[in-house]
Amino acid sequence: MPFVQISLRTGKSPAYRQALCDGVYKAMRETFDVPEDDQFMTVAQHESADFRYSKSYLDVARSDDLVFIQITANATRSVVQKKALYQCIVQRLGDNPGLRPEDVFVNIVEVAVENWSMGHGLAQYA
Amino acid sequence: MPFVQISLRTGKSPAYRQALCDGVYKAMRETFDVPEDDQFMTVAQHESADFRYSKSYLDVARSDDLVFIQITANATRSVVQKKALYQCIVQRLGDNPGLRPEDVFVNIVEVAVENWSMGHGLAQYA
Amino acid sequence: MPFVQISLRTGKSPAYRQALCDGVYKAMRETFDVPEDDQFMTVAQHESADFRYSKSYLDVARSDDLVFIQITANATRSVVQKKALYQCIVQRLGDNPGLRPEDVFVNIVEVAVENWSMGHGLAQYA
Repeated sequence: MPFVQISLRTGKSPAYRQALCDGVYKAMRETFDVPEDDQFMTVAQHESADFRYSKSYLDVARSDDLVFIQITANATRSVVQKKALYQCIVQRLGDNPGLRPEDVFVNIVEVAVENWSMGHGLAQYA
Repeated sequence: MPFVQISLRTGKSPAYRQALCDGVYKAMRETFDVPEDDQFMTVAQHESADFRYSKSYLDVARSDDLVFIQITANATRSVVQKKALYQCIVQRLGDNPGLRPEDVFVNIVEVAVENWSMGHGLAQYA
Repeated sequence: MPFVQISLRTGKSPAYRQALCDGVYKAMRETFDVPEDDQFMTVAQHESADFRYSKSYLDVARSDDLVFIQITANATRSVVQKKALYQCIVQRLGDNPGLRPEDVFVNIVEVAVENWSMGHGLAQYA
């Protein structure tokens, strides 16, 4: 059910972008109560003029490798789980494709359990 | 007011993508209390490496024709209306462009009525 | 922290798209309690078949220059602040790149303060 939208600059290989998806999926499995094979994601690549970020906001030294990860999910996780997710995403993406911790930006959008239809026009969680 | 963001794999014709928009609009008109001509949508096409989905999660046999439909709307609809919307989207997209029910993924994000400005800097619903 | 996603038709220059980002950032600084250099944005360009809008809904005469601005932010602003933001975005984008007030569409998505990690795997606001 989480729907993950990843945004980054152009120029990374398909394997690199797939590693981003793999890492986010692994982290959601480990920390965010996400069932096996519950993975639904898009990646969008942006030219320089279409990708803006602060290089220092909150004293984080970001680079052009910055990745925005927006995760839409059911509003059923605790603050503790969210914090664990952030840490785990940073670890998994550090492992592969080798992203710096400064370049991982995560935002969670929460919705009600009846706000999903994952095929057949059914509301599978409601 | 609903803002609809559709994501799919590359390779479909402009007519096909327009049919997706038409079908979602029709279903919102029929089931979701959406006024006439209230249609605001984007479509994003993704290469294989930028589009990930489970082929079997929740026992739904998805294919590369899968379409993600994220609908941001006011938090004014009932669970019954949401379920009717899902069914109707599947029917309309089955009619045209001929999408399989397994390949329709819908997610609703809800916001407050004052969270829209649809021109002129006004909050038309607040 | 606000994460801003801008969508428009293809055909505008990089300077034009950067002016959109600049204007939204300025308006957020002036009206929306956004700290200095807190700017994180993507721009997506869409072909005609991938960009649908009503030319008259709510009696607003929109054109192909329409810009969708979706702002994900903490749920800490008042209705008054939201209305001020809409007016200010219209003013700033009217100054540069010269957007008509009819062609500014804004949608705010609100989240909890713990729903952000802006680097290092930390939840900086929680």
